[in-house]
Amino acid sequence: MSSADQRWMGAALALASRGQGRTHPNPSVGCILVRDGITVGRGWTQPGGRPHAEAMALAEAGSAAKGATAYVTLEPCAHVSSRGPACADLLVASGVDRVVAAVTDPDLRTNGKGLGRLAAAGVQTVSGVREREARATLAGFLTRLVLGRPQVTLKLATSLDGCIARADGESRWITGPQARAHAHLERSRHEAILVGRGTWEIDRPALDVRLPGLEDRAPQRVVLSTRETGDDVFQLSAPMEIARLPADHLLVEGGAGVASAFLSADLVDRLLLYRAPILIGDGRHALGDIGLGALADAHDRWAMIDSRQLGSDRLEVYERVRCSPGS
Amino acid sequence: MSSADQRWMGAALALASRGQGRTHPNPSVGCILVRDGITVGRGWTQPGGRPHAEAMALAEAGSAAKGATAYVTLEPCAHVSSRGPACADLLVASGVDRVVAAVTDPDLRTNGKGLGRLAAAGVQTVSGVREREARATLAGFLTRLVLGRPQVTLKLATSLDGCIARADGESRWITGPQARAHAHLERSRHEAILVGRGTWEIDRPALDVRLPGLEDRAPQRVVLSTRETGDDVFQLSAPMEIARLPADHLLVEGGAGVASAFLSADLVDRLLLYRAPILIGDGRHALGDIGLGALADAHDRWAMIDSRQLGSDRLEVYERVRCSPGS
Repeated sequence: MSSADQRWMGAALALASRGQGRTHPNPSVGCILVRDGITVGRGWTQPGGRPHAEAMALAEAGSAAKGATAYVTLEPCAHVSSRGPACADLLVASGVDRVVAAVTDPDLRTNGKGLGRLAAAGVQTVSGVREREARATLAGFLTRLVLGRPQVTLKLATSLDGCIARADGESRWITGPQARAHAHLERSRHEAILVGRGTWEIDRPALDVRLPGLEDRAPQRVVLSTRETGDDVFQLSAPMEIARLPADHLLVEGGAGVASAFLSADLVDRLLLYRAPILIGDGRHALGDIGLGALADAHDRWAMIDSRQLGSDRLEVYERVRCSPGS
Repeated sequence: MSSADQRWMGAALALASRGQGRTHPNPSVGCILVRDGITVGRGWTQPGGRPHAEAMALAEAGSAAKGATAYVTLEPCAHVSSRGPACADLLVASGVDRVVAAVTDPDLRTNGKGLGRLAAAGVQTVSGVREREARATLAGFLTRLVLGRPQVTLKLATSLDGCIARADGESRWITGPQARAHAHLERSRHEAILVGRGTWEIDRPALDVRLPGLEDRAPQRVVLSTRETGDDVFQLSAPMEIARLPADHLLVEGGAGVASAFLSADLVDRLLLYRAPILIGDGRHALGDIGLGALADAHDRWAMIDSRQLGSDRLEVYERVRCSPGS
């Protein structure tokens, strides 16, 4: 694997992220076709999961694909579906010389067969280029495959002392416009967004994406409630039911009861913590009972994987530590 | 002012920080004497405020001070005291060629007279080199001079969700060993350390400095209590009484009641926030009522001036924004 391979795969990873939150039940994949150092085709999984990234890139390249290298963030599929031909076959037919994949497909219908079919047809194949990053772009798909449920992200917007509102409920605004815009961008990357019944009935939140050009990305609204809301929303009566959602990425937005319920059920994979440089004091706290037995049990569960300044606020992204002792 | 001046003043600033928390009622000053690019003397204000930094550096240099440049973080004093001669006179007598000061002394007994006396004796003088940083090292002294009370630092050690303990009071440990060691280093920089009566009576905290070589730096213990404790501690019945403390730097350590009382009284200048990457849920919160009228009033009060990783924990240092609208 060359540094050029690394670089081109970076471009394919960026394309893959375009589809995140819109490709369920398929993974969001990116593909770039390169010939003589020039991009001749680009594709990413389209909403609903089809066309696949490779099909889109090959259609763009046309006859220019002949002799090119295809960079794909996931091994090309080997199975023919009613919704389209296998990408491995399309790539062979296009005349590409070489296929570089970041990850082999964990889907047992492909799982090595895609690259195998390409190699059998005389196409040079490489896999494992920027695999860790590719797995991150596939987290929702992989969580569904392995755990049978969407990847769950919990969003909290708090003061430095961990409040999400004043005691009287006033919460507009704790964070500033840049942090709120970022939170909307995160919404656009999720197929579903969930709030509790209290938040739903009191605030009637739109839960949409208010960013120019992304207005059509509003996730499916989900309300956690044991009582029928009567509204046009997906309803779940317990966190465990998230497996039923037609989504690989679920954003949990509030309030404290819902956040605590998901944490208690150990159903949070990723934590988005937006923090404003303010102190509130006796306000409403971000969390209630999360079923913590002892302080020692709270440690080694979360690792910060990203942090950034958003105006005067700070965003920290934590991921659940998957291999913690005793888990 | 040359880049060499900037650099040597940096060394003087580092020396100044050595005395922080031990020089009340004097400021903690650093002095370095340089001749032909070689350090010939170094000094910093000694415990209790005397000898002054200049006297110590001149004593170390002896006759080598002749023709040297003296870098001082604060204008040399011009007033003779029963505790020693004026540093401006000592410098003239030593034969230094040049004196570079970071800040002119706001004490009206000196306030320009120190540099004036040096200039009158034919010594070249410069002031304002790295002034902002020097003011930071003098913050306690300047707070005492301007506001008539010590600079107050509030220390909080919390989980990501703003808890300082579990509901049953368990708080050992939230942060790890590196963060706790740093908190002890901060103690060594304060003349006084304050806790509330509840913390005092329940925990009987030692409030000492458990760091090798700094064991003798334990601050004066202060308890906020309207009832006589009967212990060998300095006792205050209200935050406003801190003016009485024989200290220019006061560290407020807890618990939530004390922290809230100092914030309500607008008596916190600096906030040390040690945060562990853990979630506690329904624990004890860092703060109670701090007298916040509306969410809008919480903004633009705090600015982050430093942040660093301490093991798996994060330290953030905030300073009160002094020129906030309406203040």
